[in-house]
Amino acid sequence: MQIGMVGLGKMGGNMAERLRRGGHEVVGYDRNPEVSDVPSLKDLVDSLAAPRTVWVMVPAGPPTHATIEQLGELLSEGDLVIDGGNSHYVDDQKHGAQLAEKGIGFVDVGVSGGVWGLENGYALMAGGSEGDIRRLWPVFETLKPEGDGFVHAGDVGAGHFAKMVHNGIEYGMMQAFAEGWELLEAADVVKDVPGTFASWRHGTVIRSWLLDLFVRALNEDPDLSDLQGYAQDSGEGRWTVQAAVEHAVPLPVITSALYARFASRQPDSPAMKVVAALRNQFGGHAVAS
Amino acid sequence: MQIGMVGLGKMGGNMAERLRRGGHEVVGYDRNPEVSDVPSLKDLVDSLAAPRTVWVMVPAGPPTHATIEQLGELLSEGDLVIDGGNSHYVDDQKHGAQLAEKGIGFVDVGVSGGVWGLENGYALMAGGSEGDIRRLWPVFETLKPEGDGFVHAGDVGAGHFAKMVHNGIEYGMMQAFAEGWELLEAADVVKDVPGTFASWRHGTVIRSWLLDLFVRALNEDPDLSDLQGYAQDSGEGRWTVQAAVEHAVPLPVITSALYARFASRQPDSPAMKVVAALRNQFGGHAVAS
Amino acid sequence: MQIGMVGLGKMGGNMAERLRRGGHEVVGYDRNPEVSDVPSLKDLVDSLAAPRTVWVMVPAGPPTHATIEQLGELLSEGDLVIDGGNSHYVDDQKHGAQLAEKGIGFVDVGVSGGVWGLENGYALMAGGSEGDIRRLWPVFETLKPEGDGFVHAGDVGAGHFAKMVHNGIEYGMMQAFAEGWELLEAADVVKDVPGTFASWRHGTVIRSWLLDLFVRALNEDPDLSDLQGYAQDSGEGRWTVQAAVEHAVPLPVITSALYARFASRQPDSPAMKVVAALRNQFGGHAVAS
Amino acid sequence: MQIGMVGLGKMGGNMAERLRRGGHEVVGYDRNPEVSDVPSLKDLVDSLAAPRTVWVMVPAGPPTHATIEQLGELLSEGDLVIDGGNSHYVDDQKHGAQLAEKGIGFVDVGVSGGVWGLENGYALMAGGSEGDIRRLWPVFETLKPEGDGFVHAGDVGAGHFAKMVHNGIEYGMMQAFAEGWELLEAADVVKDVPGTFASWRHGTVIRSWLLDLFVRALNEDPDLSDLQGYAQDSGEGRWTVQAAVEHAVPLPVITSALYARFASRQPDSPAMKVVAALRNQFGGHAVAS
Repeated sequence: MQIGMVGLGKMGGNMAERLRRGGHEVVGYDRNPEVSDVPSLKDLVDSLAAPRTVWVMVPAGPPTHATIEQLGELLSEGDLVIDGGNSHYVDDQKHGAQLAEKGIGFVDVGVSGGVWGLENGYALMAGGSEGDIRRLWPVFETLKPEGDGFVHAGDVGAGHFAKMVHNGIEYGMMQAFAEGWELLEAADVVKDVPGTFASWRHGTVIRSWLLDLFVRALNEDPDLSDLQGYAQDSGEGRWTVQAAVEHAVPLPVITSALYARFASRQPDSPAMKVVAALRNQFGGHAVAS
Repeated sequence: MQIGMVGLGKMGGNMAERLRRGGHEVVGYDRNPEVSDVPSLKDLVDSLAAPRTVWVMVPAGPPTHATIEQLGELLSEGDLVIDGGNSHYVDDQKHGAQLAEKGIGFVDVGVSGGVWGLENGYALMAGGSEGDIRRLWPVFETLKPEGDGFVHAGDVGAGHFAKMVHNGIEYGMMQAFAEGWELLEAADVVKDVPGTFASWRHGTVIRSWLLDLFVRALNEDPDLSDLQGYAQDSGEGRWTVQAAVEHAVPLPVITSALYARFASRQPDSPAMKVVAALRNQFGGHAVAS
Repeated sequence: MQIGMVGLGKMGGNMAERLRRGGHEVVGYDRNPEVSDVPSLKDLVDSLAAPRTVWVMVPAGPPTHATIEQLGELLSEGDLVIDGGNSHYVDDQKHGAQLAEKGIGFVDVGVSGGVWGLENGYALMAGGSEGDIRRLWPVFETLKPEGDGFVHAGDVGAGHFAKMVHNGIEYGMMQAFAEGWELLEAADVVKDVPGTFASWRHGTVIRSWLLDLFVRALNEDPDLSDLQGYAQDSGEGRWTVQAAVEHAVPLPVITSALYARFASRQPDSPAMKVVAALRNQFGGHAVAS
Repeated sequence: MQIGMVGLGKMGGNMAERLRRGGHEVVGYDRNPEVSDVPSLKDLVDSLAAPRTVWVMVPAGPPTHATIEQLGELLSEGDLVIDGGNSHYVDDQKHGAQLAEKGIGFVDVGVSGGVWGLENGYALMAGGSEGDIRRLWPVFETLKPEGDGFVHAGDVGAGHFAKMVHNGIEYGMMQAFAEGWELLEAADVVKDVPGTFASWRHGTVIRSWLLDLFVRALNEDPDLSDLQGYAQDSGEGRWTVQAAVEHAVPLPVITSALYARFASRQPDSPAMKVVAALRNQFGGHAVAS
């Protein structure tokens, strides 16, 4: 089918390519004229036949808000907007209501797959009405991996909520591998640490794509000496913890994984200054300064 | 090759079977005469040709200590004992030294695979000397999965240390899935929770064997209403945390996962009684009694 | 000075009483006519001489929003509203801006002291302009404890932010005592647990008011057998964690304390059902159902 | 009474002084001849009248083992040894049994008080027999603070177990203050952070000696800019966590506090290298190197 794609970065560009390979007609718009098929969002809308389908793949927050607001002005009743970026599910609910006032449909889609998605397909978690999901089925079928990798999770917002929880689980799993590696390195009982991780790829309880990726990383850099212990966090990890606090759900593992990332970015721990100060006050313990 | 197997329970019995299917001659001994090939450990030793190979697959702790002590008396110089149970790596080092006094070799093997190992093979992490590992290679080759799933991790103790860390990682991964599921259920934004987990099996960052197993479990019981939130812990989780404390390695995720299991077995939280008592003291807050 | 007090519950009623004992003229209004001095909020406002001072002491959220909205309509330029309840600091900033449009001042005050405040005084953390704080000084001086217990923490919102962090620290401290008690009870090495806590009241690093209160609680119920391990949480604990996530500050201790309360209210842990299901899938482990 | 004191460092020296001020006759021995009253441990023993009382105040572990072994050889039936250092309670049980073989009594005493103990007294938690405790009462009475600060916690080992838990609670409380301070500094809503902590000293739920000490520290260095966020841990924190794991008691707060100290001493987090490597593998995320 015909689809407009807004945002042709690492994710949007590859998804447009996968759609084209699947036989869809994609008109792409990006702020960067070098990769854009049309000079403006208006031109993108004008180049599509009604009822139009526009997939938005721009950074979450203000860029997505602005794009959806503009599309609300440019599109017509019966058109359909998809937000496939990393929006917060509460924003989806606002965007959906905003577009609904003009008779424009809205579907939110959480997309997983990273740089591997072009070849392997993208896992898709969608939120929206039955009708809108059905209408988009040809697009989903092309984007998703062979076999499965698609869920209609619920109403508007459910797609990004599902993706948010997926990422929360991902945080916990990554940190579990990270802690295991650190302990193996520290204890020095196991002499072949990369070989141990490689051996776990078959027949163990923890075999997984993350383990496969980690073994790849260790093949390139067996003791990770080229890397700094510094990790960014995306919005999803924080939103997962905030949703948990809101719903009174204890998430010790996912929260610990998020906090470990926060701490990794601190050149010096402010909290530990307090502990050092207190130890010095009551015990006369030496402090580092 | 010829091998004696001591302990023919869920694990040892299946491993003996897999070895036989692989063309090895296995003589099995178990305290339970119904499954045992020979009436006593002495008979097992007597039925093997020197140099003998005896694989011990009995519960960790006193049963393993006792078995290895008896084998030390029954076996001869040049024989070889393998502990494939769930022993603590420090015990391996003791057992190895004990047998070495009599010229008997010792290899520790961490085994992963559970009830699926008979068909899929068992991941094996081995600790011991180069020579002993080479001598056992035909056995390892039959037990392990296709492709890979074996590592010679280091000296005696390294096999169980590697397995211990594997299980620690497993604790963290399981808890990550568990927390994600609890949040999805509590928030009620996603309507199709089993479908969401099923969709994650393809194309996502968190695809893994544990996810596959969880989807199986949800197929049988979509809201887990048949289960109680009660989980045992095995020695490995505790040993992982103790090794981390000994080596000053922070393991927030693995430890949180272990503590969640401890808490799941408490009908009432003693610590929370203290919090309730304090809230009542300073704020006159109502308490449940 | 003359002051209107809105909300005469456990906190507001005692604060009105302490103000009266300190020589202030207090007109109190409460929805409950039995404790109210005037029949309506309008009557309260009418009974005060301009420029008026109205201290609001009602539950956070909708009741506070409604009260401040009504006061915005009833009061006049030059009047001053204080929110001494448990509002979120972001709400303060909204309330302050809302009242400022009409020339009405606003100060937020975090109040600590619980049921002991009437006799010992209330610790006060205030947010607002220099001028408004100075104007309220006679009131603060009467309410606060001997010696100290007052801070002008910053602009509007800073008082409740400070109180929020105070409560976060309180969560961590309470949980620390709780965990220590649970370990002493479980290990059974120490025979006189109440005596041990009592002995810590003098000369130790952990001597504190919370310890004093806990010793009182143990005097009444030496093994806390009259209590259930069930603890509510107030908004402040959750807001502290949310503020930390927003500012990328790791709060492992305060968050763990909050999560322990969440878990204490679950008759069965949903997350642990997942762990039980997975253990059963891969290991054939028995599950409780 | 007459008492031998072995170890005249920061703690032992001050305790000897407090005992002398209290009218006791103290003979001190230290490896450092400049502070020692006698040239050898044998001379110390010889200078005491039977039945002798020897208080050992040397570092835990090998120095304490060696001292107690030597005393076992030098002392006679009816004499009494006190270990007032920071020994692990399991070591106490060994030392007690070792001395009992020769008819020598043994009492373990956990001592709190740090550099303030000389003036304020030392909180004492004692483990041993009723008779031995009674015999030492004059010593305890002089060392302990006015009012209280002493408990006979149980049999040999109970004193150090109680002290261990005290220190575990201390870890949690210190970290709670530390986290609160870090959040206040990061959020920048509260402008007067030292003033806020100072105000909490009166009338709040968190008033405590640790808060008093922290206010002292902030008076000297209002933003702690002279300090590094680096904190050592003593044995007690680790032992508390290990005892908890052994007894299946969840200690999320105390363990988090311990782990925060571990992490504070890592110039770079090994675990976070793994997270960075994985993020790079699946998402092409930039890594710091």
